[in-house]
Amino acid sequence: MEFSSKLLERAVNEMSQLPGIGKRTALRLVLHMLRQPKEQTIGLAEALQNMRHEVKFCKSCHNISDVALCEICSNPNRNEEVVCVVEDIRDVMAIENTSSFKGLYHVLGGKISPMDGIGPHDLNIESLVTKVSKGEVKELIFALSSTMEGDTTNFYIFKRIQDFGIITSTIARGISVGDELEYADEITLGRSIVNRIPFESSIKI
Amino acid sequence: MEFSSKLLERAVNEMSQLPGIGKRTALRLVLHMLRQPKEQTIGLAEALQNMRHEVKFCKSCHNISDVALCEICSNPNRNEEVVCVVEDIRDVMAIENTSSFKGLYHVLGGKISPMDGIGPHDLNIESLVTKVSKGEVKELIFALSSTMEGDTTNFYIFKRIQDFGIITSTIARGISVGDELEYADEITLGRSIVNRIPFESSIKI
Ligand SMILES: [Zn+2]
Ligand SMILES: [Zn+2]
Repeated sequence: MEFSSKLLERAVNEMSQLPGIGKRTALRLVLHMLRQPKEQTIGLAEALQNMRHEVKFCKSCHNISDVALCEICSNPNRNEEVVCVVEDIRDVMAIENTSSFKGLYHVLGGKISPMDGIGPHDLNIESLVTKVSKGEVKELIFALSSTMEGDTTNFYIFKRIQDFGIITSTIARGISVGDELEYADEITLGRSIVNRIPFESSIKI
Repeated sequence: MEFSSKLLERAVNEMSQLPGIGKRTALRLVLHMLRQPKEQTIGLAEALQNMRHEVKFCKSCHNISDVALCEICSNPNRNEEVVCVVEDIRDVMAIENTSSFKGLYHVLGGKISPMDGIGPHDLNIESLVTKVSKGEVKELIFALSSTMEGDTTNFYIFKRIQDFGIITSTIARGISVGDELEYADEITLGRSIVNRIPFESSIKI
């Protein structure tokens, strides 16, 4: 692609670094910006910069937060003895949306995937094990996507915490096997939390 | 969508202003940025800001340019007597890519579309008529998309300049009717310029 402007070229190149955005799409988006009022592009740029500079992750659950301890972790009405383990913050948003869960979360930041070079130490697993070892947690709900990587991650965590004698469960597999959690509809997802089953029985299948 | 962070929410909202980017996609893109090195997001934000603040449009052909007169218009090897009329700069890029055209361009910035409230005065048409009226142009090639709006725009411009006695042509319709110009393959597009036909004969069909 030959550009008549270096400024345009750089903007298109930077945009096309984003996943799923090719050069053509990036060019279409950037030309759209040029047709909109200047304030709109400046607003977008500032929002991205502010987010990247100032965003925090909750020191307890690793959810994205504007404060050190997120709103969920600091809410006295939530049951801190039940912790739902999820891959990323989109899953927190999806489950919160169902209003079916009143415990806390633990955001792993991904799942174990040797193919992608992601091992247990790349994820927020140690802080979860520490939490459990302190006796703060009575039940751990695994709510990872039902993929091989999700199952591997569940199993790894289960082995690490099984001697602490807490209840472990997985959300009911009403969600089709292989599906990403975040795309499940609210009712299915809500029901799958209510109908969760002991983790031990899920690995016997 | 309930966000655990206002910074995140604002970034997602701004991203989802872009055409074809829904809230879910915006969230996916923004979370991707948070996993990448900080410099990458800052680089994107700066590229967008610089472009929006500093980009210029060529004073002669209205192509995007970093200088007052674009590289094509200021190139002494181009034939300034042949002007190719296009909708937007993506079409300039597409035609330049075929290396089949050595004249200049005139970028209209869109096409006449009463449905979208775009009339002749919203486009760079007056400057084209002025250019032709000064006797600077010997041939005008219409290279708009072959849609009703494209045809309307061609015809409007043709009526405005027909008394100046210049040659008018349209690119050969090797490109399927109804197709957007920018998606045509290079060979078809290159050939359609070489095989252009007199504009008068195209409207008799
Ligand atoms: Zn938290
Ligand atoms: Zn120019």
